[in-house]
Amino acid sequence: MHVVTVGTIALDSVKTPEAARHDQLGGSASYAALSASYFSPVHIVSIVGKDFPQEYLDFFRSRGIGTESIEVVEGGTFRWSGEYFDDMNTRETLSVAVNVLEQFKPRLERDARQAQMVLLANCSPDNQLEALAQVTAPSFVVADSMDLWINIARERLSQVLERTDLFVINDIEARMFMETKNTITAGHRLLELGPRHVVVKKGEHGALLFGQAGAFFSAAAYPLHEVRDPTGAGDSFAGGIAGYLAGLGKPQFAFEDLARAAVYGTVMASFNCESFSTDRLQALSRDEIETRFTDFQRYSRF
Amino acid sequence: MHVVTVGTIALDSVKTPEAARHDQLGGSASYAALSASYFSPVHIVSIVGKDFPQEYLDFFRSRGIGTESIEVVEGGTFRWSGEYFDDMNTRETLSVAVNVLEQFKPRLERDARQAQMVLLANCSPDNQLEALAQVTAPSFVVADSMDLWINIARERLSQVLERTDLFVINDIEARMFMETKNTITAGHRLLELGPRHVVVKKGEHGALLFGQAGAFFSAAAYPLHEVRDPTGAGDSFAGGIAGYLAGLGKPQFAFEDLARAAVYGTVMASFNCESFSTDRLQALSRDEIETRFTDFQRYSRF
Repeated sequence: MHVVTVGTIALDSVKTPEAARHDQLGGSASYAALSASYFSPVHIVSIVGKDFPQEYLDFFRSRGIGTESIEVVEGGTFRWSGEYFDDMNTRETLSVAVNVLEQFKPRLERDARQAQMVLLANCSPDNQLEALAQVTAPSFVVADSMDLWINIARERLSQVLERTDLFVINDIEARMFMETKNTITAGHRLLELGPRHVVVKKGEHGALLFGQAGAFFSAAAYPLHEVRDPTGAGDSFAGGIAGYLAGLGKPQFAFEDLARAAVYGTVMASFNCESFSTDRLQALSRDEIETRFTDFQRYSRF
Repeated sequence: MHVVTVGTIALDSVKTPEAARHDQLGGSASYAALSASYFSPVHIVSIVGKDFPQEYLDFFRSRGIGTESIEVVEGGTFRWSGEYFDDMNTRETLSVAVNVLEQFKPRLERDARQAQMVLLANCSPDNQLEALAQVTAPSFVVADSMDLWINIARERLSQVLERTDLFVINDIEARMFMETKNTITAGHRLLELGPRHVVVKKGEHGALLFGQAGAFFSAAAYPLHEVRDPTGAGDSFAGGIAGYLAGLGKPQFAFEDLARAAVYGTVMASFNCESFSTDRLQALSRDEIETRFTDFQRYSRF
């Protein structure tokens, strides 16, 4: 099963207590696609400016990621700059230059339209809905979002949720969105908005998967001694989920498939955090992924 | 196997956004002993004032908890008062009246001395060491502590650690104690101080168990829709661990035994949080505990 992912491609500048890097490959679609590409063929739907390095597009293709639906237009690529502090759990956005992203209208080429696994990575609900509408026969839809869209596009986000099989969101945003202090309550309330499954990401504390009829799964995070750059961890998580499920190639997924997918997602997110930008996601082997998955099984057995 | 636990018995006054309660049964030894009592016979070593309600002592005995090593002296019982805010994760201590606790010198009666499972619940390292010294033939020692002792009695706490099989501490305190921002690193460093195993408690995010030769286990928390009063959750957690292990009655414990013990600990902590003071821990059945343990297995299977 092919994955089509719509989202942002960015040039990120990131500062941590240890180091700083400028204009690195970033954006929700980049992380999500790279992560998914270890499990199945992927197509990216996004937009970049003429300043976007050709080497990154070549690199996507070298990983079997279709770039035909990435529009290249006059203007600057979307840029984000942020700084992480101290414990790497708090970050501050230093600057955002929307640039060409402002004119983004997803246009899916043939292969992208025919993908059955749809990953609506973090971008505006409008873009998510437009992309989804162009997929001929989606069999499973994973959607990610963030506080910005909850605040400024809540209604359109609700429309995304109605068409979503698995909605992914972080714990702070889930509680804010559902107006509760309790993460478990937030997960259950999100289910009532339409998605058949909800995953609440908790960063270093793992993730919670909520399903129909009280189905529930709690995944720990992989124990990391050092977090170098958590940018993109949530996107890698969503990408790992969509990619793994697509790789199964089933017409329907059991709750247990989704639980395993969530574990693959946390495994991919853990690799993501080990180095700056997409560095670690560029140089992985399927063996390394399976080893970490097996570790994970051992770490949660009792 | 009998459990002997040394710690505080308190009268707690707790305020939450929902309610307030005055002079309720509290203290580390109370919670720990009640929790452990569902798995094995327990003896409490502590001190109270003459104002301590006889009904609480009677209640301990009704749960098979030996009270012979609870000293009753002139003066007021140790009192703690605190308030929880908003998300129930942050609390503020409003007042502490040490009272008779100041003159506490653990004195273990015969049955308490002969217990083989020693639970050094949260109290001063001096009291923990004095109690431990009176146990004739301890086969397993669980110790809990808190920031206060890390700050004012670090050296004595280190002596406790050297004699501990399983050290229990919360994540913030573990990182503070080991001077690192990373919880995984903190767990490994704590092992180097002597304990054969370390459990780092993460509240609503579960707990991490570190063992010898890289052994590691991550337990999620039980998903609670509502947290009414988390006071004593850490003590109930430690009590569940010690009680469950004592109930196994083995001469030695495998890492898997400790992992299961940690899950029973989180189950007991989850009950603890469901109502004020020890209310929920007073009215449990072993069936309810096993049901939640089984839920827990299902929730972490993949």
